[in-house]
Amino acid sequence: MFEAAEIGRKVKKSDFKEAVRELRPELLAAQRQARREGVPIFLLINGVPGAGKGELTNQLLEWLDSRGVHTHVFWDETDEEKQRPRWWRYWRSMPKAGEISILFGGWYEQLIQDQLAGEVDHHQAGQEIERIKETERMLIADGALIIKFWFHLSQKEQAQRIQERRKDPQSHWAMAPETVKAAKHYEPFIAAATRIVRETDTGEAPWYLIEATDRYYRDLTAGKTLLRAMQTHFERPAPSETMRVSHAPAIPHTEEAQITILDRVDSNQQIKKSEYQERKAKLQSELNALGWQAFRERQSVVCVFEGWDASGKGGSIRRLVHALDARLYRVLPVAAPNDEESAHHYLWRFWRNIPRDGYWAIFDRSWYGRVLVERVEQFATQAEWGRSYHEINTFEAQLAEHNVVLLKFWLDIDKQEQLQRFKAREVTPHKQHKINDEDWRNRERWDDYKRAVNEMIIRTSTEYAPWHIVPANDKRFARIEVLQKTRDALVKALKKGEKVIGTDKKK
Amino acid sequence: MFEAAEIGRKVKKSDFKEAVRELRPELLAAQRQARREGVPIFLLINGVPGAGKGELTNQLLEWLDSRGVHTHVFWDETDEEKQRPRWWRYWRSMPKAGEISILFGGWYEQLIQDQLAGEVDHHQAGQEIERIKETERMLIADGALIIKFWFHLSQKEQAQRIQERRKDPQSHWAMAPETVKAAKHYEPFIAAATRIVRETDTGEAPWYLIEATDRYYRDLTAGKTLLRAMQTHFERPAPSETMRVSHAPAIPHTEEAQITILDRVDSNQQIKKSEYQERKAKLQSELNALGWQAFRERQSVVCVFEGWDASGKGGSIRRLVHALDARLYRVLPVAAPNDEESAHHYLWRFWRNIPRDGYWAIFDRSWYGRVLVERVEQFATQAEWGRSYHEINTFEAQLAEHNVVLLKFWLDIDKQEQLQRFKAREVTPHKQHKINDEDWRNRERWDDYKRAVNEMIIRTSTEYAPWHIVPANDKRFARIEVLQKTRDALVKALKKGEKVIGTDKKK
Repeated sequence: MFEAAEIGRKVKKSDFKEAVRELRPELLAAQRQARREGVPIFLLINGVPGAGKGELTNQLLEWLDSRGVHTHVFWDETDEEKQRPRWWRYWRSMPKAGEISILFGGWYEQLIQDQLAGEVDHHQAGQEIERIKETERMLIADGALIIKFWFHLSQKEQAQRIQERRKDPQSHWAMAPETVKAAKHYEPFIAAATRIVRETDTGEAPWYLIEATDRYYRDLTAGKTLLRAMQTHFERPAPSETMRVSHAPAIPHTEEAQITILDRVDSNQQIKKSEYQERKAKLQSELNALGWQAFRERQSVVCVFEGWDASGKGGSIRRLVHALDARLYRVLPVAAPNDEESAHHYLWRFWRNIPRDGYWAIFDRSWYGRVLVERVEQFATQAEWGRSYHEINTFEAQLAEHNVVLLKFWLDIDKQEQLQRFKAREVTPHKQHKINDEDWRNRERWDDYKRAVNEMIIRTSTEYAPWHIVPANDKRFARIEVLQKTRDALVKALKKGEKVIGTDKKK
Repeated sequence: MFEAAEIGRKVKKSDFKEAVRELRPELLAAQRQARREGVPIFLLINGVPGAGKGELTNQLLEWLDSRGVHTHVFWDETDEEKQRPRWWRYWRSMPKAGEISILFGGWYEQLIQDQLAGEVDHHQAGQEIERIKETERMLIADGALIIKFWFHLSQKEQAQRIQERRKDPQSHWAMAPETVKAAKHYEPFIAAATRIVRETDTGEAPWYLIEATDRYYRDLTAGKTLLRAMQTHFERPAPSETMRVSHAPAIPHTEEAQITILDRVDSNQQIKKSEYQERKAKLQSELNALGWQAFRERQSVVCVFEGWDASGKGGSIRRLVHALDARLYRVLPVAAPNDEESAHHYLWRFWRNIPRDGYWAIFDRSWYGRVLVERVEQFATQAEWGRSYHEINTFEAQLAEHNVVLLKFWLDIDKQEQLQRFKAREVTPHKQHKINDEDWRNRERWDDYKRAVNEMIIRTSTEYAPWHIVPANDKRFARIEVLQKTRDALVKALKKGEKVIGTDKKK
């Protein structure tokens, strides 16, 4: 494959200068258009060590308007990053709508290095390649433009370049120390890269192989390719978002055929007040100890609370966090996304709140809004929510791979109980702020929500992250259920012991 | 996940009859529309043994117009099938435009069974899941409708049903023998199925989970779901085919920057006539022996000949097959697809010609037409040819997994040499049929073809199936090259020895 970039293409300095005079204003215009149209642009810079990726990046930064261009380097993984699922650091560096992220090495460099170091085998590399493809496809479906550059040098040229650089007092400092080391491993590097580049060379996100021997050719080709990629993206109409599928079976209209999972839940299960007090106290004290143990063992926990309006999510969360040390957890109420959040993929705001090893994140509503409120209220298109089940499963799989304990609760009350609670809220002064017209409107769409909940539970109950449906007509019963399930999950996770946190490579 | 189909949904017999009266004409109308619009429909019937998949299929066949519906079962893999890459049998059963294939077990049943039998491990299952997703995505992008049914029974219901059936003299014969055996492995079956179903539950091709306890509910829901899936498919506009990417780097306009791989080929390499005769004789005799050895060792060979018009593909093929026993090879000239072929995915006509173990298929032009003539002449959209590099690599990877020796030759002549050959053809009576206006038209688009060839070689030269660029200005040189490379590839493949042909599970 890389032979294609060993054929000696060149550009003369004078031609370069002339071409750049034309190119720069066009690049700036394209950048302005990207900003206007709100296209997030990923520019992935990869290639053979010594190919001058740094030099090229500097050149691009010089040509572009530096406002709205951010460079991200991944070679020094920080503690912050190590203590979270592997892809967290890539999500951190994602451009928002209208901006450009230059990702040095992107999500490819790490995989190549891990393979060279023998840290991932052929199979594991294959899985990571699939993850990369899925993620790129997901971002593109969401409107992103992903441009992947591979800068190539032959083995001979690489060696030569390193030699020359060493001798030249003007520029030897410009060579990254890795480059020198890397030259010793040219062949295995190319072998690993060949497979990775080929298998991720998809229709949506092709690789651009660029010969890096001649720097004028390299920089001019990169600049022109970037320009054309942007222009092509603007010229063509957005791919139509229609997905030609329905998602759930077409159930017959008779009543007995219409029952759902939620109908099978006995929402009326109760617990006596005295038993409640006793069990709550015991569970909370256990949880407190478990929380500290989890902190010591660097076990992180993510809880998701979903449920009908007025089903008692807030109350259950308060009983849970009451057990925990305030330094260990964050409660994250999820409402409509703010501007910053809307300018990213919908999962971005959840990714950024994934806790470090040892800590808890408790989501009061969550990423499941995509397949609940956004589906029912048509804030998301059918294509968007339709594909998000799979996106959510993939996201949660990444938490599971990092050994995060993930708990998902659906607090289930029946329609009658909701009515009573709404009414009680209206007449109780300190609860009036908790009820508004929107709640009443949502209530009218009960059956639509029920269908959406049913499908959500079916499609996103996984071995690694099952849904817990909590009967919640009796608030006490619900709270104990939440405490109990959380305690059980933690006991189980901490028993496993001997975790190597910070690396989720051993899937 | 499957809990969702253990909640006791039912339909009364009288309601069933009434609903069916409405459903049947609608199903027939939808089927007619599918025929009119040329939509190929895949109906994948899967589920727990004993769920009545056979019964349900009979019911559907009764409701549908049986013309244009074909049922395919996969549980008894034939020799024909074993001796070809694993997916060959699925490609055989693909519906053509406007028809319905009912795939019993589809490509899922085999994977579940292999996992239960311990023949594939977790990693390998993951790879097969990716292959399934890629293939479904590819077919859908090509306009297919894929409907995946999963019929579920709880463990208790399965046991009960088998008991009842055994006792009932009216219907015990209707139970497949596998069903009885399967009941002993309910839990591992469900565990394997859960992961496979969840991970292949994508936005484009979701699973429909249908409770199979009550047969009226089961059949009616399946019928209605099939109807709605077809109607939804027709109602919505076809997804727009635009791909918002260009594929190759934007090369600067100066001459030194424009050179391609082909410019680096010294097309003028020659060989003396006497040396030619000698080497040809030796290579052909070696190849004959190797052909027989390959037959005995069940090693199959696929050769692809591509090249400029008049580059000598036919002549090279003749010298090659001259060495082989006529029973062992087929030469497959590839022209524009016929009606039957056009009604399938473009790879279908190549899949069906994949040889059995021990045999040769020699393609005179090939699936690469997609990225050459179809690209340049715009017979395929940019989205279609853009994604086909990846599709082709995946296809060839499947040949490689089955240990097929795959040889790809690009016969390269320069523009001047082509002109001379065209002129010679025009004046030589027995060659006049080999030259027509189209050849002259193609010649005018030389540069477009050159760009396409360059990109093809870059994107589809893989470790397992590299391109051989054969300098062909001297016909003798080219022929020797072809014979030599073929001989070398066979020697290498046969040396490996100890192949277990017929199973490509050990990737």
